[in-house]
Amino acid sequence: MASSTVSFIIIIIIITTVLLPSLSSQLSDLFPSNNPPPFLGKHSHPIKQPNHHQQYRYETRYFSQPLDHFSFLDLPRFRQRYLINTEHWVGPSRSGPIFLYCGNEGDIEWFAVNTGFVWDIAPRFGAMILFPEHRYYGDSMPFGSKEEAYRNATTLSYLTAEQALADFAVLITDLKKNLSAEGCPVVLFGGSYGGMLAAWMRLKYPHVAVGALASSAPILQFEDIVPPETFYNIVSNSFKRESSSCFDTIKNSWNALRSEGQKEDGLKQLSKTFHLCRELTSVQGLSDWLDSAYSYLAMVNYPYPSNFLMPLPGHPIREVCKKIDGSPAGSSILERIFNGVSVYYNYTGEVDCFQLDDDPHGMDGWNWQACTEMVMPMSSDQNTSMFPAYDWDYSAFREGCQRDFQVTPRPRWITTEFGGHDIEHVLKSFGSNIIFSNGLLDPWSGGSVLKNISETIIALITKEGAHHIDLRASSTEDPDWLVEQRATEIKLIQGWIYNYSKKMKATFEI
Amino acid sequence: MASSTVSFIIIIIIITTVLLPSLSSQLSDLFPSNNPPPFLGKHSHPIKQPNHHQQYRYETRYFSQPLDHFSFLDLPRFRQRYLINTEHWVGPSRSGPIFLYCGNEGDIEWFAVNTGFVWDIAPRFGAMILFPEHRYYGDSMPFGSKEEAYRNATTLSYLTAEQALADFAVLITDLKKNLSAEGCPVVLFGGSYGGMLAAWMRLKYPHVAVGALASSAPILQFEDIVPPETFYNIVSNSFKRESSSCFDTIKNSWNALRSEGQKEDGLKQLSKTFHLCRELTSVQGLSDWLDSAYSYLAMVNYPYPSNFLMPLPGHPIREVCKKIDGSPAGSSILERIFNGVSVYYNYTGEVDCFQLDDDPHGMDGWNWQACTEMVMPMSSDQNTSMFPAYDWDYSAFREGCQRDFQVTPRPRWITTEFGGHDIEHVLKSFGSNIIFSNGLLDPWSGGSVLKNISETIIALITKEGAHHIDLRASSTEDPDWLVEQRATEIKLIQGWIYNYSKKMKATFEI
Repeated sequence: MASSTVSFIIIIIIITTVLLPSLSSQLSDLFPSNNPPPFLGKHSHPIKQPNHHQQYRYETRYFSQPLDHFSFLDLPRFRQRYLINTEHWVGPSRSGPIFLYCGNEGDIEWFAVNTGFVWDIAPRFGAMILFPEHRYYGDSMPFGSKEEAYRNATTLSYLTAEQALADFAVLITDLKKNLSAEGCPVVLFGGSYGGMLAAWMRLKYPHVAVGALASSAPILQFEDIVPPETFYNIVSNSFKRESSSCFDTIKNSWNALRSEGQKEDGLKQLSKTFHLCRELTSVQGLSDWLDSAYSYLAMVNYPYPSNFLMPLPGHPIREVCKKIDGSPAGSSILERIFNGVSVYYNYTGEVDCFQLDDDPHGMDGWNWQACTEMVMPMSSDQNTSMFPAYDWDYSAFREGCQRDFQVTPRPRWITTEFGGHDIEHVLKSFGSNIIFSNGLLDPWSGGSVLKNISETIIALITKEGAHHIDLRASSTEDPDWLVEQRATEIKLIQGWIYNYSKKMKATFEI
Repeated sequence: MASSTVSFIIIIIIITTVLLPSLSSQLSDLFPSNNPPPFLGKHSHPIKQPNHHQQYRYETRYFSQPLDHFSFLDLPRFRQRYLINTEHWVGPSRSGPIFLYCGNEGDIEWFAVNTGFVWDIAPRFGAMILFPEHRYYGDSMPFGSKEEAYRNATTLSYLTAEQALADFAVLITDLKKNLSAEGCPVVLFGGSYGGMLAAWMRLKYPHVAVGALASSAPILQFEDIVPPETFYNIVSNSFKRESSSCFDTIKNSWNALRSEGQKEDGLKQLSKTFHLCRELTSVQGLSDWLDSAYSYLAMVNYPYPSNFLMPLPGHPIREVCKKIDGSPAGSSILERIFNGVSVYYNYTGEVDCFQLDDDPHGMDGWNWQACTEMVMPMSSDQNTSMFPAYDWDYSAFREGCQRDFQVTPRPRWITTEFGGHDIEHVLKSFGSNIIFSNGLLDPWSGGSVLKNISETIIALITKEGAHHIDLRASSTEDPDWLVEQRATEIKLIQGWIYNYSKKMKATFEI
C-alpha cells in the first residue's frame, strides 16, 4: 500500500472537505461567525505528486468539448484532458472492453494513480483504461486557465454534473468511433462524487456504458431522502462503539472550548494547549480543525495501518479514544482532546506545532458545486451526535452562497434530474448493472444505496470498510473481506460483459 | 370526428413540415436553388382555433421555469403555460394517476383538443390531465415575447429537447409537491416529436414517470440508424401499392416539370396547368407544393374519410391514383398530376386557384431544432423512390443552417444523449414501460421502434394505421383494429399503474 497512499489521502481529504458541508455552519450555534463557511481545508490544494514511481503507464491526451452541451450559445470550446492506456486492450475485433473512470473533483492524475483496482484488473479483461478529467478541475479548464474559469459566477456556470456526464458521453462516443470500437462495451468506475457520476451515467446513458461500479457514492444525501443527521451520527457512532467515555469527552469538549475561549487570555491558553504555531484569533478555526479530524478519521477508519497524508495506525479511532480515555488522571477535557487528535495530526510525533487553515474560503470547484446543485443538508442531533447540535439551515446556507459566489442554489434539482426518492421502487424494474459498494464505517455510506434493488442493481456492503477502499490497488495487507469484495465486483463486471457479448453475438447469428 | 379535426390537421401539417427536412434539398439535384431550405409551409402558422366547442375543459396556468436547467448563468426565467384538468382526479389519498402529455412544437391548446384519447380515458383512471407547453412555442416564450425569443441564435439557444424535458420534470415535481401528490404515478403521452419526448422522458426520468405511450415517435430517424431513404420509400410504396402506373407517372413528372419550366413561357404554362393564382417565378415552389401533398397524403392515409385541414376521402392515396391513372386519354403527365393532387388540395371542388407558399423561410422553432439537434438525414433512392433522386448532403445542410440561423448543427448529439444505435440490445435489460405505437402507412414509422424490445418495452403496430391516429378521440367511425389498439394501450397503462401501486403498497405493509 506504500507508494501511492500519500496522494490517496489527498483524495480522501478532498472528498471529505469537498463533500462535507461546512462544519462551521454546524457549529454556528455555539460559535456564531460572520465568516462564510470554510468549505475547504488546507489539504484541498495539495502539492502535485502524481504517479511518482510510474507504476501506472498512460498517455495524456486532450479532447475538444463544447462548453455547454444543452444550449447552442456560441461559446468557446475547452480542452478536456484524459489519460489512456491501451497496452492490454484486445481491440475492436475481440470486443475488448473499455474501463472508464468518471473523473471527479480534482486532478485526474491523482485519481488515476489512486484507483489501482482498475489497473489491477484491466489485463485480465483485455481492457482499455480511460481516465477522463472532470471539467473545471486539474488541466481541463474552460476559458484557458483556472484563473479565467474561476473568475466569477458566469464563467463557473457550466461547472455542473450533467455537463460533466455529457463530456464523458461525447468523449467516449467519439473515441470509439475513431477506433471503430463501437462494439466494445464500456464499464464505468468511480469513487465518492466520481461514484455518483458513474451511477448516474449508467442510468442516463445506458447506450454508452453497460454497467457501473459506484463506490462510496452518496447519491441519496440530498433533500430529505436520508435524515440530515446521518453523516454525523455515523462519525459519532464510530467513536461510541470504541468507547462511550471517549464519545462523551468529545461531546463535552465543545462547551469547554467555548468557555475557555471566552476567558481572558483564553485564546492564548487554547493555542498553548493545542500546540498551535500561531495564536488563535477565535475558537472557530480550532473547532474546524478538530471536527475535520473526527470526520476524516471516520472515513479512513481502516482495520490496518495506512499511510495517507497522515500516517495512521489500524483502527485509528480506537487509538484516538485510547489516548482520550487514557490521558493521565487530572487531565482536563481539552488536554484529553489534544492527546486524541494528535494521533491523527501527529502520529509520527514529528510535528512541533500545528498550522490551522489560514484561508478556508477561496474559489474552489466543489464549493461552487455545493452552492449550486450539490446541496447536501447536514444536521447534528443533540442526543446522538458528539458534535454540537445544529439544525440544517437552508436560508443561511443560501445566503452564504449568494455572498460567496453570487449564485442561488437549486436544492431540489439533483433529485429532480437524477431521482433518489423511493429509489428502490423506481429502479426495481428500471435500469440494471450498477454496484453500489460501501463500507459501513464510512460516514458517507449513510447516503448511499445499502440494499439490493434488483438482481442487477446490487449493494455490496462491508462492515469494516471505510471510504471506497475497494478501488485501491490490491496489497498483501488486504483483509479477507476486501479480497472477497473485489472478487465479487470482478465477477459481476464479467457478467455484464458476458451478457453484452451474448446479445451482440445473437444478433450477428440472426 | 367532426369538431376537432380542423385543428388536428394543423398539427399533422405542422408535424410534417416540421419533422420533414426540406424537400427542396431533396430536389436540389433537379432544381438547384440558392434559397435556404423551405422548412415550413403556409400551414405552419395556422389561425388559432383551439377548443372551439369547449368539448374539453381545462384551466390555463403558468409556471416559472429557469431558462437553462444545466448551467447557473443568471438568466431571466420564463413562464411556461400548462393546461390542467382535475375534475376526474381521485386525488393523492387514492394515488390518482397524472396523465401528462409532452407538449411538442406548437400551441399546447392545439395538442390538448386533438389528443382526445387522453381525455377519453382519464375518467376511468381517475386521472388528472396535464398539458404542459413546449418552451418557445405557443404562449411559453422566453424573454417575454416570440419576437424577443426568436430574435437570434443567442436568444434561441435554449430551445432544445433536453431543456424541454427538464421543464416537464421540474413542473410536475413542483406540482406534485404542492398537492402532496408525490405518491401519484405519472403516465406520459406524446405523438410525433411529442412521442419522442415521452419515450426519452421515461428513459431519462424514470423517477418522474412510470411509463410512456410514444405514438409515431421516430426516435431512430437520426444519423445512420435507419437508411436515409426510409421516409420517401414508405411514401412511394403507399402510392405503388395502389397503382404502379400512378407511381410511375409521379416519378416521371419531375423531369416533365423541369423541361416545361425551361421552355419559353414554360412557367406561365405551368401556372395555368396547375391553376395557380399567381404566376410562378421558378418551378421550385410548385415542386415543393407537390411533394408536400404526397408526404401529407401518406401520413393521413386513413382507411376512412377524414376532415382535416383538407377534407379527404378514405384511402386518399387510392383516390389520388384513380385520378392520375384515370385522366382522359391524351392527358399529359402534368395534367394527370394536377388531377391527382387536386384530391388533396381541392377535394370539395371549392378552390378556384391555388396559393403556393410565399415565404417558406422565416424563423420558426422547428427550423431551429432541425438545424441544431434534430438532424434527420433524408435521401431519395433513384430506384425505389418516386421523388427525384437525392443523396443526403450534410455539408449543404450545415451551410444552410449557418446561413439561416448562424448556428452549426450537432448531427451526432441526439444519439449521444438519447441513444438509438442498437436500441434493442441497450434497452433489452434496461428500462421498462414504453409503448411505441405506429401505423405502417405513416412514413415516420420507418424511424420508430417496430419490434418489441422487452416484455415491457412494446411495439404496437397497425398495418392500416397512419400518423398517431391512436391519440385521437374515439369515434363511431373507428375501425376495429383501432379500437383494439387503444384497448391494448389502456390495458398496458393499467398494468403500469397496478404494478406501481403494488410496489408502493408493499412498502407501507413492511
